[in-house]
Amino acid sequence: TDFGHQDIYVGVMKGVIAQISPAATVIDLCHEIPSQDCAAARFQLMAAYRYFPVGTIHVIVVDPGVGTQRRAIAIQTPTAYFIAPDNGVLSGILHHEEILAAIELNVPRYWLTIAPSATFQGRDIFAPVAAHLANGLPLYQLGTPMDPTTLQQLSIPPVATIDKGWQGCIQAIDHFGNLVTNIPGHLVTAFPAAPHWTVRYQEQIYPGYMTYGNAAIGQVLGLVGSHGYIELAVNHGNAQQQLNAMIGDAIAVLIDPSEFA
Amino acid sequence: TDFGHQDIYVGVMKGVIAQISPAATVIDLCHEIPSQDCAAARFQLMAAYRYFPVGTIHVIVVDPGVGTQRRAIAIQTPTAYFIAPDNGVLSGILHHEEILAAIELNVPRYWLTIAPSATFQGRDIFAPVAAHLANGLPLYQLGTPMDPTTLQQLSIPPVATIDKGWQGCIQAIDHFGNLVTNIPGHLVTAFPAAPHWTVRYQEQIYPGYMTYGNAAIGQVLGLVGSHGYIELAVNHGNAQQQLNAMIGDAIAVLIDPSEFA
Amino acid sequence: TDFGHQDIYVGVMKGVIAQISPAATVIDLCHEIPSQDCAAARFQLMAAYRYFPVGTIHVIVVDPGVGTQRRAIAIQTPTAYFIAPDNGVLSGILHHEEILAAIELNVPRYWLTIAPSATFQGRDIFAPVAAHLANGLPLYQLGTPMDPTTLQQLSIPPVATIDKGWQGCIQAIDHFGNLVTNIPGHLVTAFPAAPHWTVRYQEQIYPGYMTYGNAAIGQVLGLVGSHGYIELAVNHGNAQQQLNAMIGDAIAVLIDPSEFA
Repeated sequence: TDFGHQDIYVGVMKGVIAQISPAATVIDLCHEIPSQDCAAARFQLMAAYRYFPVGTIHVIVVDPGVGTQRRAIAIQTPTAYFIAPDNGVLSGILHHEEILAAIELNVPRYWLTIAPSATFQGRDIFAPVAAHLANGLPLYQLGTPMDPTTLQQLSIPPVATIDKGWQGCIQAIDHFGNLVTNIPGHLVTAFPAAPHWTVRYQEQIYPGYMTYGNAAIGQVLGLVGSHGYIELAVNHGNAQQQLNAMIGDAIAVLIDPSEFA
Repeated sequence: TDFGHQDIYVGVMKGVIAQISPAATVIDLCHEIPSQDCAAARFQLMAAYRYFPVGTIHVIVVDPGVGTQRRAIAIQTPTAYFIAPDNGVLSGILHHEEILAAIELNVPRYWLTIAPSATFQGRDIFAPVAAHLANGLPLYQLGTPMDPTTLQQLSIPPVATIDKGWQGCIQAIDHFGNLVTNIPGHLVTAFPAAPHWTVRYQEQIYPGYMTYGNAAIGQVLGLVGSHGYIELAVNHGNAQQQLNAMIGDAIAVLIDPSEFA
Repeated sequence: TDFGHQDIYVGVMKGVIAQISPAATVIDLCHEIPSQDCAAARFQLMAAYRYFPVGTIHVIVVDPGVGTQRRAIAIQTPTAYFIAPDNGVLSGILHHEEILAAIELNVPRYWLTIAPSATFQGRDIFAPVAAHLANGLPLYQLGTPMDPTTLQQLSIPPVATIDKGWQGCIQAIDHFGNLVTNIPGHLVTAFPAAPHWTVRYQEQIYPGYMTYGNAAIGQVLGLVGSHGYIELAVNHGNAQQQLNAMIGDAIAVLIDPSEFA
């Protein structure tokens, strides 16, 4: 969610789940998505969902259109369920996974009825629906089947092949200031460790290494980050601050060692 | 609590609970109450407690008087228990719920004995008492019955009837910058959706709508928020920043559509 | 950890644990350790571990050397397990507890194999190893026994005996702005409550009290904090801000009441 930790919103969703499905295990994935930033939610979910048990019910509430005609949806893949507003936060899942079923959530008997609001469907719809699903209620009872191809999609920034490498952009920046590009790491992991590939950013060239510690303290380096994408980082430092970087900045990965002189 | 997430205080309370009551489910409601702000704790608890299962033990540790003669208390309502310092954080509960029992916590055999401190009764008293209660220990064994009318109360900001509406104030501001007034939503929900009621703030008039998306992007709007109070918000924006708002600011709700021109 | 709450790192570690050991109870101790600050992690762990159940598996991931030749280790004490990088974060445990076994974690069959990275061993090594241990796997199957005296140690700031008292430093500052020294509280708790001992900081003398409320609102006071060390605090205030304090600042505790005039 983008609810943050300042308010009671997350706790209240868990209270609602505990009422309906007391035995459910609830895990916080992230509640610090920037407010109403569906693209950030898409990225974080895509980077995380593979690490959860088979049968996990993922609940995503980043929802600028709450209370309007945007649909509330649930989809089923071979290994998990995803419950979210239909605003593109599930684009990564739709791109990578087989969709076994897609449902528009429109059966109010499984929603919260204490005092429904037009602005907190995390509490009133998404949490109770997830809890009923955790209790074993079949997905199809929660709503009407729909065509998955009609679901909202967020376009993913493109990666272009350029001379001696690939051109992409920074798609996320983490708590440590590491710059996560949209360039997949497998493009360079076929090459020997260091420094046979480089990263070009802001007209500078930085070496690609296996890990932070292969670089000197304070040195900027490229590496294949834990999300599976190439990152730009600073050993014992913060690349965002040191390079004044922003999401969306252009960045390239080059495999010609002659660039690195 | 007002412990925040920077320190180990919350984790240590959960460790203590896990020692005494390993099967208890612990849910974080909020740990970002402003330091020692009992009024904020009162509001957040009042807005949240209805969404938890029957029998929930709510533990509130916002405690500027820790270690002084202020009492530690537990109260029982028909649906829940509340454990807290006697400093007004339970005022909302006392106002809305029937009090079946009130106990002053003064039986040290149910407290932590590792190395009791005068400054962290969350760890030393409130957590262990909650865990024993979760284990089924009867409330009356934890202390001495007391007269609930002697409990500390925090006054709630008053709402006044004015010409064509009600005058109140901003009682909370959430993570999204939404301004939560103390004017109950049911005063306007009898009226048709939009724009038949308005909010007057800083000498401006804003329309009342059902939800954010009924307003244009960037527009200020009134709505009935998820807490049940009228809020002032900005569609896809942050009302606190846009209006430079502060808790305590005067605000009015008007039901005369002629105000909205 | 030093992962913070902005990213999915903590949630992903819990997902991995839930895959391997679904019944394990996971408690967050602290994820806001300053980035790569092993000394802060050492302090917080040392202050917290006693409050967890016997058999708890503590996982510490503050790891500036991730992916280098630094070892990943697990140690067993009479009451708990500790899993961490070998970089000094366990120094406090090694100092205070009997070490029954120390293992270098080097058996990849108990690590995550989805897409191992060189930069997120919290996900790929520490979480899965902890989960297998929670499932009852014997410690010795996770790696090779090692000599505990070869483990990395972080030096603890020394406390010196001076005329009429002790000289130390500020070793931590909490969310409330309380200044935690490295001077043990038991040095003064033998003395009557107040004001028979004092704290000298920035050439000022402050009285030592039992708790915040013994001082006037806004007054600076010394007290024995919940960590067991002497702290400098402000009643209803923030000592860090009021005194412009920093970690490492020199501070003294004096027991001569004539100092307090």
